[in-house]
Amino acid sequence: MNISNRVEALRKWMQTEGIDLFIVPTLDPHNSEYVPEHWKCRQWLTGFTGSAGTALVTDSEALLWTDSRYWLQATEQLSGTPFSLMREGEDCDLTAWLSKALEASPTLRIGFAPDMMTPEGYSQWLAPLGLKPSQTVCDTDPFELLWQGRPALSMAPAEIMPDEVAGRSAADKLHALTEWLGQHHRDRLFVTELSEICWMLNLRGSDIPYNPFVIAFLEVRTAAPHRLFVHPSKITPEVRAYLKALHVDIHPYDEGLRLQLAALRHPVAESPVAAWRALKNHAEREGMQRAHVQDGVAMVRFMAWLERSIADGRTDITEMEADRRLTALRAEQPDFLGLSFETIAAYGPHGAIVHYEASPETDVRLEPRGLFLLDSGGQYACGTTDITRTIALGTPTPEECRIYTLVLKGHLQLAHAVFPDGTTGLQLDTYARAAMWREGYDYGHGTGHGVGHRLGVHEGPLQIRKNLRACTTLPFHSGQTVTDEPGIYVPGAFGVRIENLLLTVEGSETPFGTFLRFDDLTLCPYDLKPVVTDMLTPQERQWLNDYHSRVRETLMPLLHDEADREWLENATRPV
Amino acid sequence: MNISNRVEALRKWMQTEGIDLFIVPTLDPHNSEYVPEHWKCRQWLTGFTGSAGTALVTDSEALLWTDSRYWLQATEQLSGTPFSLMREGEDCDLTAWLSKALEASPTLRIGFAPDMMTPEGYSQWLAPLGLKPSQTVCDTDPFELLWQGRPALSMAPAEIMPDEVAGRSAADKLHALTEWLGQHHRDRLFVTELSEICWMLNLRGSDIPYNPFVIAFLEVRTAAPHRLFVHPSKITPEVRAYLKALHVDIHPYDEGLRLQLAALRHPVAESPVAAWRALKNHAEREGMQRAHVQDGVAMVRFMAWLERSIADGRTDITEMEADRRLTALRAEQPDFLGLSFETIAAYGPHGAIVHYEASPETDVRLEPRGLFLLDSGGQYACGTTDITRTIALGTPTPEECRIYTLVLKGHLQLAHAVFPDGTTGLQLDTYARAAMWREGYDYGHGTGHGVGHRLGVHEGPLQIRKNLRACTTLPFHSGQTVTDEPGIYVPGAFGVRIENLLLTVEGSETPFGTFLRFDDLTLCPYDLKPVVTDMLTPQERQWLNDYHSRVRETLMPLLHDEADREWLENATRPV
Repeated sequence: MNISNRVEALRKWMQTEGIDLFIVPTLDPHNSEYVPEHWKCRQWLTGFTGSAGTALVTDSEALLWTDSRYWLQATEQLSGTPFSLMREGEDCDLTAWLSKALEASPTLRIGFAPDMMTPEGYSQWLAPLGLKPSQTVCDTDPFELLWQGRPALSMAPAEIMPDEVAGRSAADKLHALTEWLGQHHRDRLFVTELSEICWMLNLRGSDIPYNPFVIAFLEVRTAAPHRLFVHPSKITPEVRAYLKALHVDIHPYDEGLRLQLAALRHPVAESPVAAWRALKNHAEREGMQRAHVQDGVAMVRFMAWLERSIADGRTDITEMEADRRLTALRAEQPDFLGLSFETIAAYGPHGAIVHYEASPETDVRLEPRGLFLLDSGGQYACGTTDITRTIALGTPTPEECRIYTLVLKGHLQLAHAVFPDGTTGLQLDTYARAAMWREGYDYGHGTGHGVGHRLGVHEGPLQIRKNLRACTTLPFHSGQTVTDEPGIYVPGAFGVRIENLLLTVEGSETPFGTFLRFDDLTLCPYDLKPVVTDMLTPQERQWLNDYHSRVRETLMPLLHDEADREWLENATRPV
Repeated sequence: MNISNRVEALRKWMQTEGIDLFIVPTLDPHNSEYVPEHWKCRQWLTGFTGSAGTALVTDSEALLWTDSRYWLQATEQLSGTPFSLMREGEDCDLTAWLSKALEASPTLRIGFAPDMMTPEGYSQWLAPLGLKPSQTVCDTDPFELLWQGRPALSMAPAEIMPDEVAGRSAADKLHALTEWLGQHHRDRLFVTELSEICWMLNLRGSDIPYNPFVIAFLEVRTAAPHRLFVHPSKITPEVRAYLKALHVDIHPYDEGLRLQLAALRHPVAESPVAAWRALKNHAEREGMQRAHVQDGVAMVRFMAWLERSIADGRTDITEMEADRRLTALRAEQPDFLGLSFETIAAYGPHGAIVHYEASPETDVRLEPRGLFLLDSGGQYACGTTDITRTIALGTPTPEECRIYTLVLKGHLQLAHAVFPDGTTGLQLDTYARAAMWREGYDYGHGTGHGVGHRLGVHEGPLQIRKNLRACTTLPFHSGQTVTDEPGIYVPGAFGVRIENLLLTVEGSETPFGTFLRFDDLTLCPYDLKPVVTDMLTPQERQWLNDYHSRVRETLMPLLHDEADREWLENATRPV
């Protein structure tokens, strides 16, 4: 069935259902960052493979909204289909479009699949329209009927994270949440975000690539039992007994879906879970540290191997081969479970494409020149990692060195910032950019995001970025994880990004307040070849050398290959 | 009439008018920062002299809300009066209090004086209550009846700022605003803020201390004539003719007041005037520069005199005497018109009181030790100044030196920041605090505010502060003025603040965007005695020396006293 046939089939179904307009967002019922294949209905319907976009189909029109990152790709992929591209920020937006359509025919009926709408999506797209309840139709899922070979939802079993790894029992978390609900005069909280459910119950799963989540809904109630809405085949007898002891009853997943659907028009209820989850407890911090030691060993062995291989004149190493090698080295670590996201292994000009992912069509050989940008991370039983290193494969050019050093300066300034408890990501962002701004450089992406404890590698609620958003105005407190990843991208030439994961810790208590600082969780040398030492302040040089000493002292005892040990010795030499 | 009598008189009047609750905010009808004496009704009624607070009187209660800065002072000043203190942020707030009162008696009638409420005040205090129109009473001004000897409004004449000083004719500004209104499908804009009216019409006055404003309302209309609501005795024949040529009709001030009152319940209309006013044109920039040269000469002569006097062992110089001397030296400058705010001349422990104002009761002698904090500014025909210097009167202690240098570092880092066009005050604030945060210091006040062109010394809309507010999320563009005034205050010991006025200018245009930097408008040496040179980076030292060279080169030719010249030579020596 080509795209035209799919649209036609949907239109026929709409006609039988009495639906005038059908919306297909890029969404699962949990607002997940990585939408499982089962819910990639927008991609199936339109043929457009980008990670963001919303499709709209009427009897005569087929439209796809997406943001500027994807305009080129969408134009190509939509060509020859019934879909026209609507450029977000330039063309009329979805809600305005719907609003005009409703002006013309006020009784229009708008449809969407029952499992592809959330209160957040509803409040963004549909709430402003003031529709009557009868005007929204979401009883049936057309994709179950129309999408032949639609991937099923994962039925992987849920597993229990032991209390000594989680650092706090699920019973204790449930108790705290019911207390909180009581204080807020509420009798229940419906939790839909999968990582929040996993954190609350100390469960982990493998339902979503890179994300150790269990697909479920959770209702926590001040009057037990609580209710977990989950497919029963995912619940082993052990987990069933565990949940029973927690006073968590098991209900069908679809029942949870119906509860969410019934609450679509309600404002999103305030929840403390994301903020609690962000504050890592002692066991979580220790686990994250252990994960980063193992990740550091893998990274060092990889970087040593890469340098030797390039020096030896090997010509068979490509971006994808490097990725495979690094993954294999990670897999040798005792607690490794899998990657935490798709590796970005980007050589030369590919490094300037911020979300580059090597594919057989784009894969290139690494040669003894230029910069190799490597952004990767792992899921370990004890924590999650996320690291970027930019590596000079030969003798870097003066421009590569200058830009690399500017990024390193920003990275070091943020990592060594000292700031009052309560400072926000919008304020901290300036540390990472001040040095490059002075030279006329900047980058469009965020500077930092939270990282979960064997949970999502992008964990809310707080971020460091230069844009005013809810996530950049939240207060930093001791115990939060956040990445530090400034970059500079020269289109068509190369990209530099350097990333460590940081942990906020208490610095000092003075008459002027409580001050925080960061500890580096990531343990891996920065490539020194492109460092222009004269561009570093004496303090920055000291920070760099102190960090490299710590990396060397921690990782050296764990390296058994003499060549790797020699490489680390040299890679962490003082500058 | 003591405070009790005043409250009783008000209650009697309320009874005859059928008013149950009477609100007296600290407010004039223009939301002015400095409330003219005529409108200090809250102070008259309560006896509390702080600059912020709201009084509420019922037949049985008399309450005063004010913020934590004033709790001590209010407790003292309200003692023996019928008023009880309501601590803002701790006790029930005004709106919640009113809401409870309305629950008890839903038909309560709430009164306020017709000239002491603005749409901003109404939307903050009264709009959330959902009152019926008949429940707000504001026909009569009780203070006209009750306040014997109430100061009259100023009847000072308005004067025209010549086009070559303003840099842009009022006709041109009116034209731009009517165009803007047309584009926004509106036929008029009611301008209530006095500095906006003065800027729009290129008028200046002297109705408010330190602020060269004319008390008026202005209605700009796409279909001329526009309307200026102003007391006719303030309008000279020359101004009358000038306004006539601009198609501005003159109407009674009270008519404007009634228009504002009628619109009290409307949301505050969007206006571009504050943002336009913030972008200084060529003539305004030049004028500000000339004002700062003159101000610099006065400051240098003052600082030279002070150093000589203290060295000579004079014991008759107090904070107030220093203020008088500085004002006298400013008054010798050709374009000087008056001060732009009340001088803060704060010696030793007084320096730690952020808004200290010396009075005969507090005035102390300056001795050859400790730090003297001097925050002052002038109104000149060509512009407005605002400068703070902290001066070591003897040999400063190591703690004074260390703290002074931390403040100087922050001050220099902000003054020399380079940042993308559109960066906000919340992001820029970090430059000023990073160095002191590292050592566990911070300050509670803002880092910077706009300064007008012979207008208010505190000019909106944008500010640099660490708090998330509308004013700290506005974009910086080339041509804006902003102060750079970090500080550290050690209660009971001393305070340090260092302030220059900066002008944003275009730095560079790169493939990564347009970058801005600051030019120092202020020209005056920083005291070098307390500088710990080793705490400065080589770059900070260079910035300091370059600035001092520029100060020396600019001001030296304007100093005629050999002792002043010698002082400047030494004060600007390279470190």
